[in-house]
Amino acid sequence: MPQPVGFILGLVESPPGWIDAERALERRFVFADFAEALAFVNRVGALAEAEGHHPDIEIHWNRVTLRWWTHAKDAITERDLELARRTNDLVSQEG
Amino acid sequence: MPQPVGFILGLVESPPGWIDAERALERRFVFADFAEALAFVNRVGALAEAEGHHPDIEIHWNRVTLRWWTHAKDAITERDLELARRTNDLVSQEG
Repeated sequence: MPQPVGFILGLVESPPGWIDAERALERRFVFADFAEALAFVNRVGALAEAEGHHPDIEIHWNRVTLRWWTHAKDAITERDLELARRTNDLVSQEG
Repeated sequence: MPQPVGFILGLVESPPGWIDAERALERRFVFADFAEALAFVNRVGALAEAEGHHPDIEIHWNRVTLRWWTHAKDAITERDLELARRTNDLVSQEG
């Protein structure tokens, strides 16, 4: 079982761009327009479905905010850290 | 130009299921799972791109919250009312 790491996130290295936001790993990604933002959301959705683990997603035209967290523990786990890292692989831009 | 109608929403008929939430028309839709929720978001995205008017979108696994509002006026306009109505046509379920 993944263990909560939120309480030690200050001690572990969080993936580039991700912050510890209220028991979730959060990052905002900025794209050229809505179409590119939605395409990214679909890539994240495919990853989430493949892994059976889903982030919260907000779309505000060209901006996408993701929050990876583990509902069962109401905390950030190693699984969230891994999926945050893999999310970064889905974009080439730096948001 | 569309005129703000937020201040008179109590007098006009808002589309079924939509509420006046902080200068936006808001509705939550509930689906069987994440895949159906994401499919709905893509249908909404296609409508938004076709109309050049985009709602704020939140996805929380099987729940999608949409907010139609007009950024230029920071208010709800007739255009938002129309797109809320057309969003309802994209789903058969009642969320």
